[in-house]
Amino acid sequence: MADNAPVTLADLEAAHRRIAPYILRTPLLRCDALDEVAKGRVLAKAECLQGTGSFKLRGGLNHILSLTEDEKARGVVAYSSGNHAQGVARAAKMAGVPAAIVMPADAPEAKRTRTARDGAEVILYDRENESREEIGARLAEERGAKLVPPFDHPLTVAGQGTAGLELAEDMEGPIDQVVICASGGGLAAGIGIAVRASYPDAEIIVVEPEGFDDLGRSLATGERQANTQRGGSICDALLVEMPGAIPFDILRGLDARGVTVSDDEALSAMAFALHELKVVVEPGGAVALAAVLNGKVDTASRSTAIILSGGNADPSTLARALKEN
Amino acid sequence: MADNAPVTLADLEAAHRRIAPYILRTPLLRCDALDEVAKGRVLAKAECLQGTGSFKLRGGLNHILSLTEDEKARGVVAYSSGNHAQGVARAAKMAGVPAAIVMPADAPEAKRTRTARDGAEVILYDRENESREEIGARLAEERGAKLVPPFDHPLTVAGQGTAGLELAEDMEGPIDQVVICASGGGLAAGIGIAVRASYPDAEIIVVEPEGFDDLGRSLATGERQANTQRGGSICDALLVEMPGAIPFDILRGLDARGVTVSDDEALSAMAFALHELKVVVEPGGAVALAAVLNGKVDTASRSTAIILSGGNADPSTLARALKEN
Repeated sequence: MADNAPVTLADLEAAHRRIAPYILRTPLLRCDALDEVAKGRVLAKAECLQGTGSFKLRGGLNHILSLTEDEKARGVVAYSSGNHAQGVARAAKMAGVPAAIVMPADAPEAKRTRTARDGAEVILYDRENESREEIGARLAEERGAKLVPPFDHPLTVAGQGTAGLELAEDMEGPIDQVVICASGGGLAAGIGIAVRASYPDAEIIVVEPEGFDDLGRSLATGERQANTQRGGSICDALLVEMPGAIPFDILRGLDARGVTVSDDEALSAMAFALHELKVVVEPGGAVALAAVLNGKVDTASRSTAIILSGGNADPSTLARALKEN
Repeated sequence: MADNAPVTLADLEAAHRRIAPYILRTPLLRCDALDEVAKGRVLAKAECLQGTGSFKLRGGLNHILSLTEDEKARGVVAYSSGNHAQGVARAAKMAGVPAAIVMPADAPEAKRTRTARDGAEVILYDRENESREEIGARLAEERGAKLVPPFDHPLTVAGQGTAGLELAEDMEGPIDQVVICASGGGLAAGIGIAVRASYPDAEIIVVEPEGFDDLGRSLATGERQANTQRGGSICDALLVEMPGAIPFDILRGLDARGVTVSDDEALSAMAFALHELKVVVEPGGAVALAAVLNGKVDTASRSTAIILSGGNADPSTLARALKEN
């Protein structure tokens, strides 16, 4: 990565020093059943076990711990479909900073409740007809609060990328490819930077739900593409209008490419994670696993790292995954 | 612990050096919801994420890696309700040693299948009318194979105790008490030794299913007591006739005491683990959590470590835990 890159390995390392006391160093899980399906070696970084149930705590903490005392006093604002909301709310609570979170009215109940439980003010909006970006920006201006963007910011990318630093350190043996879910692309970009620093030949593959492959199409065409739908997939954590400019530039620079999985494949991967890896993943957190289980990436005789990015599944979705698989 | 103790801290440390390359250093999980219920600090060691889905891999490996080359060639025999079976089968596979496993015919399907998947020969018996100890001893004699006892052996206790070494190292801050499920008592004894070495005042509390409190009654009376039932609890991993002599002596020497939980409390703890900690625990693996959630131990303003010992829940049991809670 060039010196003028928006996010460097040094940024990730600084982020990790900043947030390490507040996060869980999540384990790398493996199981024979997964290796058998993949016909190769697969290790899964279980960010579903992270505080607040997703990697989003990393980016939230990296932002908030980077604020000045004056900025901390005026508080933070974030918009999110759920996991970023919880990550920012918890990071704000840990740092003693007031937080207001803009969430879609159709976000899973569990995610709304947990955001409020951490002391954040929750403001609901209509995903089909309102812009969360506008609401967030207005609130930030009214309150003099700092906006914590969900993906399109160097501090977010560096924070999420700390999961990649741990992955690269904890993998024993090579990484031929890393498979990462993507919404705005912040996690994938951060992990891509970290993994490439240690494994220069590793492929970076992003996974999106069918119908929401904005990042994959953007990488294929070299220009940022938008989704036409805004809702309708079970992968509620991965429904964004278009990739972030910064993550897209980073991922393009890393020659990343995209694949997609169906809702049924995500649900089936959730059941596999429960039975074989003994972890709860939400639909959006299961798409990288689903891509491996369904042959969307070439895993035979290769060493593949995947991210299980979040575990905040509603009880009804968990029950459905168990029943249908 | 005296120099003539059956298992010493040095035995645990030797076991950890022996098995460390083959096991996962399982994470310590926490969540605000659990601390709120407990009115204190609770950390949960997630041995449900261990290879084969339970801590039993530790003891199995410690035995098999301690065999002579000649003993390895003749193979091992084990009897088990399920998790020890899988632990020994996997340890044998890792060490390239043949294994025959004696399992009750009513053991969960998933546990039988997985034992066979690791290449072990599975021999079923009737839990109500046959003695697994007799069948195991006969097989070992016929084949010249080494019996790997599930709990009543110094190598087993030392192997399981390695989870306690990791716990004591990874806890940041004090441990006032450690709460551990018990069947024969091998895990509890091993963890007790490890925790007391670092935290001399820590209380050791064992948790058993109602109706199977042989160890708790043994500790209360100072003499080993037997259970009258052999089946009938959902906690299939914790149904033993009486505690092992070696674990009992160790636990008595540590002034351990017992509490019990109901099947409903175990199921409810499984649901809590799924929703809040994002891990799958089986009923027997959930009893320490159930004890904390239901006020069976005094957690207020204290620092409590618990073990989530296994995650091999049948899909129907998982579905039931979700539905009823």
